[in-house]
Amino acid sequence: MNTAVFDRRESEVQSYARNFPVLFHKARGAWLYDEAGQGYLDFLAGAGTLNYGHNHPELKAKLLAYLDDDAIVHGLDLYTVAKRHFLETFERLILSPRGMDHVVQFTGPTGTNAVEAALKIARNVKGRSNVLCFTNGFHGVSLGSLAVTGNSHHRDAAGVALNGATVMPYDGYLGADVDTIALIDKQISDSSSGLDLPAAVIVETVQGEGGINAASSEWLRRLEALCRKHDMLLIVDDIQAGCGRTGTFFSFEEAGIKPDIVTLSKSLSGYGLPFSVVLIKPELDRWKPGEHNGTFRGHNPAFVTAAAALELFWSDDRFATEIADKAERIRSAFAGIIARHPDAGLSQCGRGMMQGLECPDGELAGEITREAFAQRLIIETSGADDQVIKTLCPLTISHDDLQRGLDIVSDAVSTVLARRNKKRAVA
Amino acid sequence: MNTAVFDRRESEVQSYARNFPVLFHKARGAWLYDEAGQGYLDFLAGAGTLNYGHNHPELKAKLLAYLDDDAIVHGLDLYTVAKRHFLETFERLILSPRGMDHVVQFTGPTGTNAVEAALKIARNVKGRSNVLCFTNGFHGVSLGSLAVTGNSHHRDAAGVALNGATVMPYDGYLGADVDTIALIDKQISDSSSGLDLPAAVIVETVQGEGGINAASSEWLRRLEALCRKHDMLLIVDDIQAGCGRTGTFFSFEEAGIKPDIVTLSKSLSGYGLPFSVVLIKPELDRWKPGEHNGTFRGHNPAFVTAAAALELFWSDDRFATEIADKAERIRSAFAGIIARHPDAGLSQCGRGMMQGLECPDGELAGEITREAFAQRLIIETSGADDQVIKTLCPLTISHDDLQRGLDIVSDAVSTVLARRNKKRAVA
Amino acid sequence: MNTAVFDRRESEVQSYARNFPVLFHKARGAWLYDEAGQGYLDFLAGAGTLNYGHNHPELKAKLLAYLDDDAIVHGLDLYTVAKRHFLETFERLILSPRGMDHVVQFTGPTGTNAVEAALKIARNVKGRSNVLCFTNGFHGVSLGSLAVTGNSHHRDAAGVALNGATVMPYDGYLGADVDTIALIDKQISDSSSGLDLPAAVIVETVQGEGGINAASSEWLRRLEALCRKHDMLLIVDDIQAGCGRTGTFFSFEEAGIKPDIVTLSKSLSGYGLPFSVVLIKPELDRWKPGEHNGTFRGHNPAFVTAAAALELFWSDDRFATEIADKAERIRSAFAGIIARHPDAGLSQCGRGMMQGLECPDGELAGEITREAFAQRLIIETSGADDQVIKTLCPLTISHDDLQRGLDIVSDAVSTVLARRNKKRAVA
Amino acid sequence: MNTAVFDRRESEVQSYARNFPVLFHKARGAWLYDEAGQGYLDFLAGAGTLNYGHNHPELKAKLLAYLDDDAIVHGLDLYTVAKRHFLETFERLILSPRGMDHVVQFTGPTGTNAVEAALKIARNVKGRSNVLCFTNGFHGVSLGSLAVTGNSHHRDAAGVALNGATVMPYDGYLGADVDTIALIDKQISDSSSGLDLPAAVIVETVQGEGGINAASSEWLRRLEALCRKHDMLLIVDDIQAGCGRTGTFFSFEEAGIKPDIVTLSKSLSGYGLPFSVVLIKPELDRWKPGEHNGTFRGHNPAFVTAAAALELFWSDDRFATEIADKAERIRSAFAGIIARHPDAGLSQCGRGMMQGLECPDGELAGEITREAFAQRLIIETSGADDQVIKTLCPLTISHDDLQRGLDIVSDAVSTVLARRNKKRAVA
Repeated sequence: MNTAVFDRRESEVQSYARNFPVLFHKARGAWLYDEAGQGYLDFLAGAGTLNYGHNHPELKAKLLAYLDDDAIVHGLDLYTVAKRHFLETFERLILSPRGMDHVVQFTGPTGTNAVEAALKIARNVKGRSNVLCFTNGFHGVSLGSLAVTGNSHHRDAAGVALNGATVMPYDGYLGADVDTIALIDKQISDSSSGLDLPAAVIVETVQGEGGINAASSEWLRRLEALCRKHDMLLIVDDIQAGCGRTGTFFSFEEAGIKPDIVTLSKSLSGYGLPFSVVLIKPELDRWKPGEHNGTFRGHNPAFVTAAAALELFWSDDRFATEIADKAERIRSAFAGIIARHPDAGLSQCGRGMMQGLECPDGELAGEITREAFAQRLIIETSGADDQVIKTLCPLTISHDDLQRGLDIVSDAVSTVLARRNKKRAVA
Repeated sequence: MNTAVFDRRESEVQSYARNFPVLFHKARGAWLYDEAGQGYLDFLAGAGTLNYGHNHPELKAKLLAYLDDDAIVHGLDLYTVAKRHFLETFERLILSPRGMDHVVQFTGPTGTNAVEAALKIARNVKGRSNVLCFTNGFHGVSLGSLAVTGNSHHRDAAGVALNGATVMPYDGYLGADVDTIALIDKQISDSSSGLDLPAAVIVETVQGEGGINAASSEWLRRLEALCRKHDMLLIVDDIQAGCGRTGTFFSFEEAGIKPDIVTLSKSLSGYGLPFSVVLIKPELDRWKPGEHNGTFRGHNPAFVTAAAALELFWSDDRFATEIADKAERIRSAFAGIIARHPDAGLSQCGRGMMQGLECPDGELAGEITREAFAQRLIIETSGADDQVIKTLCPLTISHDDLQRGLDIVSDAVSTVLARRNKKRAVA
Repeated sequence: MNTAVFDRRESEVQSYARNFPVLFHKARGAWLYDEAGQGYLDFLAGAGTLNYGHNHPELKAKLLAYLDDDAIVHGLDLYTVAKRHFLETFERLILSPRGMDHVVQFTGPTGTNAVEAALKIARNVKGRSNVLCFTNGFHGVSLGSLAVTGNSHHRDAAGVALNGATVMPYDGYLGADVDTIALIDKQISDSSSGLDLPAAVIVETVQGEGGINAASSEWLRRLEALCRKHDMLLIVDDIQAGCGRTGTFFSFEEAGIKPDIVTLSKSLSGYGLPFSVVLIKPELDRWKPGEHNGTFRGHNPAFVTAAAALELFWSDDRFATEIADKAERIRSAFAGIIARHPDAGLSQCGRGMMQGLECPDGELAGEITREAFAQRLIIETSGADDQVIKTLCPLTISHDDLQRGLDIVSDAVSTVLARRNKKRAVA
Repeated sequence: MNTAVFDRRESEVQSYARNFPVLFHKARGAWLYDEAGQGYLDFLAGAGTLNYGHNHPELKAKLLAYLDDDAIVHGLDLYTVAKRHFLETFERLILSPRGMDHVVQFTGPTGTNAVEAALKIARNVKGRSNVLCFTNGFHGVSLGSLAVTGNSHHRDAAGVALNGATVMPYDGYLGADVDTIALIDKQISDSSSGLDLPAAVIVETVQGEGGINAASSEWLRRLEALCRKHDMLLIVDDIQAGCGRTGTFFSFEEAGIKPDIVTLSKSLSGYGLPFSVVLIKPELDRWKPGEHNGTFRGHNPAFVTAAAALELFWSDDRFATEIADKAERIRSAFAGIIARHPDAGLSQCGRGMMQGLECPDGELAGEITREAFAQRLIIETSGADDQVIKTLCPLTISHDDLQRGLDIVSDAVSTVLARRNKKRAVA
């Protein structure tokens, strides 16, 4: 494997390749293949970008036909047939059935660009600069998004002060006994609390990078009520948890809340193509033309695969049912692992197909994922101390492949714990 | 033309479609085609993103083959064959021949993401937060980039204070008599000037959005010397002016300067696919793994077309020669227009194939571009008051198409001025 | 009473004169006198500035002698005999007996100037910008101090973003069940909590403006331990609670903590003369000469009265004993009032001679203080909703005058509640 | 001279005492006296605070009588007889004769507190946060004032980012050829210059700390016109240059401009007592009660001496005439020094009795002031490199003392230059 040019010419900022030092070449569904054709089962899936797997054949066919036809690839924000088709499909299959009258803003096609736009419009509409965000939240690394992101590894790289945000404890953050909504309400209601009245709250219903923490539906509903009470906008950042990851298209459907603003990206194109949108309640859509722009906001191939993915997976309830079934298999497998190692301090977290196996520390979690990688499973950790092993496998994964991956995790846990016990016995 | 869904569901932030209300479908080279097959000559070209034209057939062939083969589309920042090939090609054809030892950081694939990364690493390496930027500069609309962007239309939408930047007058901004480098030097040298010592200077060699202002080579060299004198890093934002737009791959080659950090995007993929990189002198590459990240930083189809474009256009000097020839044709055409209307207050600006025809005001410029659009030429304005008609046609445009476009501009100018004179005579 | 010039020429920012619209002329001890010689008992006492009463005769004698002698009044920060005498006295009577090796910084003679200096040195020594402050805290209205102040009435007037501070819940703020030290510890310890590691914590042991909230000694000790654990400096703002107000010279003596930095002002001069200092642990005293300055930092008359006040009141324990006795009388009087009106929702708060009678709302508290003023008692409210009636009478008040004031408060409470009950009965 | 306690217990921030290490005891007029009675001629005079000299006998008499009478010393912002008398006198002698309808805000009695208030009200009234300030300006060291202060020695101590201000070149800063008003106008007028529209401009008509730079009357008038053109408020910080220092009560009278907001402090009390006010055009006085407060904003002894000083010096034109005469003597003396040392690179600057002798570097200036101090003249330097020897002697100085001080400066210059020439000859 010749990777010399990476050593010579790629920045030290590179990260995933350090944990999975393989030169990949091809991919299909839940599998990645190296140059020699060796397969790796992919439980990372573009960090939640490949909910429909790598290179889904039906999406691929649409994409190839579109490109072959010399249809427009890059069109700024001009009207195009592909964009119209995406908007009509998204309206018909996603927005209208859910009673959402939001308009769609096409931003530069990365998640952080969408978050930047969401924060701007919220602040401008309300005329206030403060935004509430949550412990362990992750929203991106451009300066606006970074200010509402919790991780100090990212924050410390800012180089300037990160302002305009106040971090609050997420559901469960202070233990079961502390009602974090009441705590926030108290501070907002108190004119002398030092908390400047926020324009908005930005929240992930399940925190992906922050350790697969799932907020309860009740907490989300109370958060929505808090927003209404204090005239704050509710922004759901559904970039990682959306597009079916938790079992419904939007992650907040189970809670029944109605966010004012929603950000989507990652799996939205369905094919790993860069694509991001912000959904905005029409009465909040006070943008002036071009006020927030970006060269690649009209990435037409992504419109094509995105529309095709919506047709394929979201025309009826079958996909949601399938996700629920697989989610239960993951839950059950993790429960089994925990039961087999009652003294290991393991616990499970998350929701839908965004579940985690939480270890007492990041060292153990890292040892387990390295062991899994030795068995050709690509699976990552997240959380403040990288202590949570997270499954982000494609939602379309076959039952066999899902079982295979879960078995590898189970094996890896057993192997690592046995190795540790042996060492401890020796010492 | 059915565009009702755009009215129903697209955000008010939409901009270009307001000036060119056509439903586009296909594109090839310098031409866009609407649903009915009607062609429009494209002198906007993705705002500088399509230097090699729409859907270049050789790049398209590579792209289709890659996708058809199920090669990896989305790979985070894992090692892939496509990424290796891009890096090797970029090193061989671009970096090495120019004596540049920079490493390549792959950022989220929009220009503003690259600028955010450039500003962060500069601030972190120098341990200072202030960055010098220039009047009329444009670097993007995420908060970090927006702070170094001049346009109040964009700045006013921030919703929070934009800090960490000090704006300085660009080359010629204060008229021919004021030496703006001396002015900056004076303020940096003076410990009581109120200017906090900057970590870096960020500059466009030709300001695209700001009105096609080209800095002289001497000014750029003096700016570089100023950076060395005061221990500031020199960041060239080559997102719009790079990739051949001014006649050489990097826009700063003519000046002979050696920036510490370079941002590239827009035409880098060669096919309108989202792609951005930051080039960083190796001694400044002090990123920690994953400190600056982004889901789509490994957009492999863009690596494929980018490498192919480099091979096709930058293996020898022929393309540069061709650009120089066309640039001269544009210059000459604009000179002719100006000469034919000596009282109209027109002037020309820019460099290479990034030239502008400056009108006394934005109203006249807008009237001319609307007239050109009536003749099916897509051409835009830029500048603080949208007073500059800018040519950003594909560098690969044929001589006939180039002439055709310039003729339409010339006709439009004559038509509009005649109409205005007639009105004035009547009044 | 001719106050026309105030209407013509004083800014609308005026506040106390609105509640007590009397033209005062003279003052002695706990009494203010109007032009006609009518006395008013002063339970406000310069908002805690006149701990030794108005125009104390022994201090006055020293001051008159000093001024009469043409000793230096204004000396910048030059060495003067008066300054030397103050420093020697402060060292001998205050610092040395308490084992404090702090050095003294003379700042511009207002509390907020001292707080600004304290925050600066803390941030500079630690090289971090964030500072923790508390709900309902008040530290001044210049921008640096305002950022650590809780009250939105003051914060909203800033006109710019207030940055570099994170507000945390004070002792008891979230109810008896929430351990606020544990809550803060959790967020500091968690690298992904979004809380940037603070340089320091700034705290009042009893919050004066915030509603006479007294932190428990245990909470203060745990806060100190938290500072040590996380390498944060502990700043006690003792501007209102210091100089004997709570029973000891420093308000933190009872808790037994050792702050790194202490701010003093208000009653420090003993005579109502502007004077402020910052006490800094010597190892933190890394100021460069003149880095933080101010024209009036050498207000020598204040040095004279301050030294005299220290001799008079702090040479032995008698004054502390006297304060404890009076504090108990206040406590007991308030307890009596509460007992007499069990349904009124009254409660008591505070510590030493900084006690409050908390009403269910600010309307009731205001009605009571207005009624007290009708009986010629000057007493103010504080708290987020002005709901706390606060006693800040001189510590030197006679037992008779203290009783008289407490009786007026008691009468006023009864009168107002009776009036309200009558109204309610009628309605 | 026992100064041990200063070494033990005073912070390193101490500055003037380092240059003038004498233990001062008494003072009268232009003279300071040490413990032993040795006199020092004071050309520093509290850095412009003692325009009427130390302990002026008539002011002293009023002060002693007031204090002896137990009139109110500390009264928060309650109505007092002394405050009324000050307001009436200030209105009658200063505001009304000059046609100024400003109201008076009493702030915490330090210059920086007044500047903080001025900036706040300007930002709030205009609803914009940016404020223009000038190279070499000095307005104080609390965070709000520091952001508009030029000196990096002070700025670097902030510990947090200094925002909300844009520094512009002062009159003459870029040499005689650059019209700095035109430069500012250009940037404000240009919507793409990156300069956010300022709420206000804050300016000193003569920069004291910045090197005794005097703006021309024409420049000030053009600055005022610029403010009117762009709807910005004009704030004149007259803390050092006001109260007669330049020859008229306000330093801007000569230019004939009408500032919206004026800050006064330093010599306002006339006796070195802490005192500051902000003068605000009545239509801008939109403060809410107590929004900007401060414990010592009612320092009544200062009201007494301030009113007395106004009566004594500003009832007619005699004092202004006297200042003009002395200013001419200083000017002439400095001209003579420069003429006697044509090769020394000396020049003169300033206006009225705020004049400077500028040396080629701070080393020479420091050597000269040290030599002067050896001859018992206290005189300081200012400017970015401490290169300007500044006269700030009392305006009331006798002709003999003035001559004596100027002679010492002249001698010191000759002595130092001769010493340097000898060294050079030897080397």
